[in-house]
Amino acid sequence: MNILLTNDDGIFSEGIRALYESLSQIGSVTIVAPDSERSAVGHAITLSDPLRVKEVNRGGKFFGYATTGTPADCVKLAIRALLKKKPDLVVSGINLGPNVGYSVLYSGTVSGATEGAILGIPSFAISLATFTNPDYSFAAEFAKKLSRQMFDHKKLPKGTLLNVNIPAVEKKRIKGVRIVQQSGRAVEERFDKREDPRKRIYYWLTGEIIKSDAKEDADIETIRKNYISITPIHCNMTDYDFIDTLKTWGI
Amino acid sequence: MNILLTNDDGIFSEGIRALYESLSQIGSVTIVAPDSERSAVGHAITLSDPLRVKEVNRGGKFFGYATTGTPADCVKLAIRALLKKKPDLVVSGINLGPNVGYSVLYSGTVSGATEGAILGIPSFAISLATFTNPDYSFAAEFAKKLSRQMFDHKKLPKGTLLNVNIPAVEKKRIKGVRIVQQSGRAVEERFDKREDPRKRIYYWLTGEIIKSDAKEDADIETIRKNYISITPIHCNMTDYDFIDTLKTWGI
Repeated sequence: MNILLTNDDGIFSEGIRALYESLSQIGSVTIVAPDSERSAVGHAITLSDPLRVKEVNRGGKFFGYATTGTPADCVKLAIRALLKKKPDLVVSGINLGPNVGYSVLYSGTVSGATEGAILGIPSFAISLATFTNPDYSFAAEFAKKLSRQMFDHKKLPKGTLLNVNIPAVEKKRIKGVRIVQQSGRAVEERFDKREDPRKRIYYWLTGEIIKSDAKEDADIETIRKNYISITPIHCNMTDYDFIDTLKTWGI
Repeated sequence: MNILLTNDDGIFSEGIRALYESLSQIGSVTIVAPDSERSAVGHAITLSDPLRVKEVNRGGKFFGYATTGTPADCVKLAIRALLKKKPDLVVSGINLGPNVGYSVLYSGTVSGATEGAILGIPSFAISLATFTNPDYSFAAEFAKKLSRQMFDHKKLPKGTLLNVNIPAVEKKRIKGVRIVQQSGRAVEERFDKREDPRKRIYYWLTGEIIKSDAKEDADIETIRKNYISITPIHCNMTDYDFIDTLKTWGI
């Protein structure tokens, strides 16, 4: 099995290293990842600038390709230019921090896997639900198991990928796996308005609080309850249910 | 009617100016847009850096706010910090170039309207299907008509926005409006591999050709046939149809 890895925390992050070590046990792994952090880049691609690629060694051994692009650029570039053979699987992560609810839209990690799905390759994104003191070992182990299953099944619908979120608790406290929808819950956020040393105003996004709704059967509550959350997401954003109503508007 | 405008071509682009002039005839318009081009930024938001805001005048009159952020940042910042009152409508565009098929995922223009929808405001993105010699007049006129209709109806489903694409032909050649799905058609693209003056290799994305499929009833063919294409798109990317199958995998 040939596996392509990418992420948005950059090639030197611990999350991608944990994934590399785990997935190398079951396949031939190539990393093509950003040369530094590209968090919250959404599904950005680079059109106005060229992309540079550098080979990166770790422990005296070839580790992967670092690029000046976004996660989506990395996957495009890997498949269209760098790899000799189309990979069997694209895995993006392990992200530091969850990618649930509307943050799926902002996530560079998810967009790496989305690009894989657009290019017709079974793909998943995997994120660990903490921003501090991450222990990637269980997530890396789970990614290995899921990679094998995806390779065996090989049947995701066209343009669909899996978005996986792992609770950041000890392995024995994880209650199982749930296949759930993306939450549509509102996010509370605000901007800090500050003054720089030259007395100029600037704004900084902060205070992102996702309102709780324990009854909702979706990704956010799933990981809060210590289940692994898996959401199949697709690249066709059409709201089919609304098409007929919109036709009655007489635009 | 209070209208917030943004785009991804930047506050100095002709597309947003055409929109401003047209929509000012039916409401009070505020522009909050990037200070320069941010094309193909997808749904990027800025977390690691502060955002700066500058007031911009055109013809000696206040025209709008230019920010150092992406279109999604602009909408967040407008609603959370700059505007005194939540707008009735968010309009993003007029984009230079179509936003159809999978490029909906890459589009900064669409993401401006997506952010509006996330924040609970009726929103649409509008793009003109040409990259050269744009004439925005008909698109601006259509945006005015659609803005009125959205204000009257006010009933988009939670998290749903409209993605509008205008064929770049004379007004009299436009055949009408069609409500259609986002195309799932494959894109052919490749990277130019080049050498810089210092003999270092770089890659540049090019050759994007969307394969033709005249039978498909979706955005791409709709504008090719000189109809205005409107696709309702939503921020919930869950592939509900696949959930039950995925549950049988026994992950």
